[in-house]
Amino acid sequence: MITVHSLDYPVSFGDCDPAGIVFYPHVYAWFDRTFHDWLRQFGGHGALCERLGAIGIGLLEASARFLRPMRDGDSLILTLSLEEWGRKTLRLSYEGRVGGDITVVGSEVRALFKHGNTGMVAAEIEALRSMVEANGQER
Amino acid sequence: MITVHSLDYPVSFGDCDPAGIVFYPHVYAWFDRTFHDWLRQFGGHGALCERLGAIGIGLLEASARFLRPMRDGDSLILTLSLEEWGRKTLRLSYEGRVGGDITVVGSEVRALFKHGNTGMVAAEIEALRSMVEANGQER
Amino acid sequence: MITVHSLDYPVSFGDCDPAGIVFYPHVYAWFDRTFHDWLRQFGGHGALCERLGAIGIGLLEASARFLRPMRDGDSLILTLSLEEWGRKTLRLSYEGRVGGDITVVGSEVRALFKHGNTGMVAAEIEALRSMVEANGQER
Amino acid sequence: MITVHSLDYPVSFGDCDPAGIVFYPHVYAWFDRTFHDWLRQFGGHGALCERLGAIGIGLLEASARFLRPMRDGDSLILTLSLEEWGRKTLRLSYEGRVGGDITVVGSEVRALFKHGNTGMVAAEIEALRSMVEANGQER
Repeated sequence: MITVHSLDYPVSFGDCDPAGIVFYPHVYAWFDRTFHDWLRQFGGHGALCERLGAIGIGLLEASARFLRPMRDGDSLILTLSLEEWGRKTLRLSYEGRVGGDITVVGSEVRALFKHGNTGMVAAEIEALRSMVEANGQER
Repeated sequence: MITVHSLDYPVSFGDCDPAGIVFYPHVYAWFDRTFHDWLRQFGGHGALCERLGAIGIGLLEASARFLRPMRDGDSLILTLSLEEWGRKTLRLSYEGRVGGDITVVGSEVRALFKHGNTGMVAAEIEALRSMVEANGQER
Repeated sequence: MITVHSLDYPVSFGDCDPAGIVFYPHVYAWFDRTFHDWLRQFGGHGALCERLGAIGIGLLEASARFLRPMRDGDSLILTLSLEEWGRKTLRLSYEGRVGGDITVVGSEVRALFKHGNTGMVAAEIEALRSMVEANGQER
Repeated sequence: MITVHSLDYPVSFGDCDPAGIVFYPHVYAWFDRTFHDWLRQFGGHGALCERLGAIGIGLLEASARFLRPMRDGDSLILTLSLEEWGRKTLRLSYEGRVGGDITVVGSEVRALFKHGNTGMVAAEIEALRSMVEANGQER
């Protein structure tokens, strides 16, 4: 498993719920944000999809375990690792830390969606993998 | 597994991303919305937590599988089922349908958080279970 | 000023902030939701833009006054009125009520955006107005 | 009008709508984020409210004018200025820039909400002003 990217995200008041802790769906938006931030070194999601003839690098699955509550003012550091390339899927894993503590771990399974005869279909992901492996050192 | 609640959620333009489909983190917010809507028959989350001396009925884990894309104008119907009561946890499962198609399935593991000596701790969940089972027919 | 549409929106836990009241930016998302729900009688935003050769019916300005706090469990009823058609703009006004009380009033100024030589430009809005006035009774 | 704070916010894919541009309600969340980030030098919103005996520094009004569309990958820089202290209100103004261009300008009117006999009431804001003026140089 290769850690390829990290992102700082400062947790804000508006991210939190009436219990004063992060409203959990936001955490997935931060996973997604980390993923898209990683893609910038390849030109970003839009340019990448254009080169690959794809609609998007979208989600099949996502999960998270919430280990510690996060609050307004926390400096969250998210790291993204490439866990496994399948024929049509890429499994990513995420870890979030505040100070020395892991607050959340999670994963996403993504596919390269293209236009098919009957709507969007998951295409072979090899072309994306090649691009990533050609220049994919973390920057 | 007992289906206890369902909720209609009309998908709107602002729920969707540049690929024109629902931005996936919102789906977890709709799971959470279904859960809180179910709680209304017990007085709602705030009143329930007050009775139970709890801060919140919060998340330990959540996951989802995205089976079909959802779009602006879709009439999403979410159903909530109680899957398993543990000593300190409640596992919930969710299913979303648009027309005849299942678009998403997912689950949440929730705990009853109370103030402990060192922050929030997951408490015995029996008291919540009793309340739910006392009047928990779907309405 | 003609009221053309109304929408029920049940306020949920996840819409609220650590003070226990609605996090205010969501209110604009509900204005937008009301607008898009109104558009459904004309085929929805996507179909409408296709007919008009437009990218979107987007925002130039928006404002709101927050008169009373809204909370988890509130049944918010939003109404949309057409306030003024300009040559290139449509001014909309919104009102939100919970029970008998007005909780929020606001407005949006929207334009019909098309591809221009130097990016998106606001086009004449007459074609949209005609469509709306041809079948625009509230349903 | 005194500029007191600025915040970098990288616009991400998930902030954007099917037209590929920022879904406008998020912009208000970024105003709010800038405000709360400014408050950190005074201990943050929670600590500040505790010292002032307040529930929150909440919204009476907010408005924005959207001058240029923002997109995935844009580096937005937000600046916050204190525009006017009233007896019970603080008017703030915001400006967002991407590269050399102003993309959005807006304002918020905030009040210091406390528990009153009949719910939340806007209190005299002098105590907040004193705190801000005592150490309120930008850091």
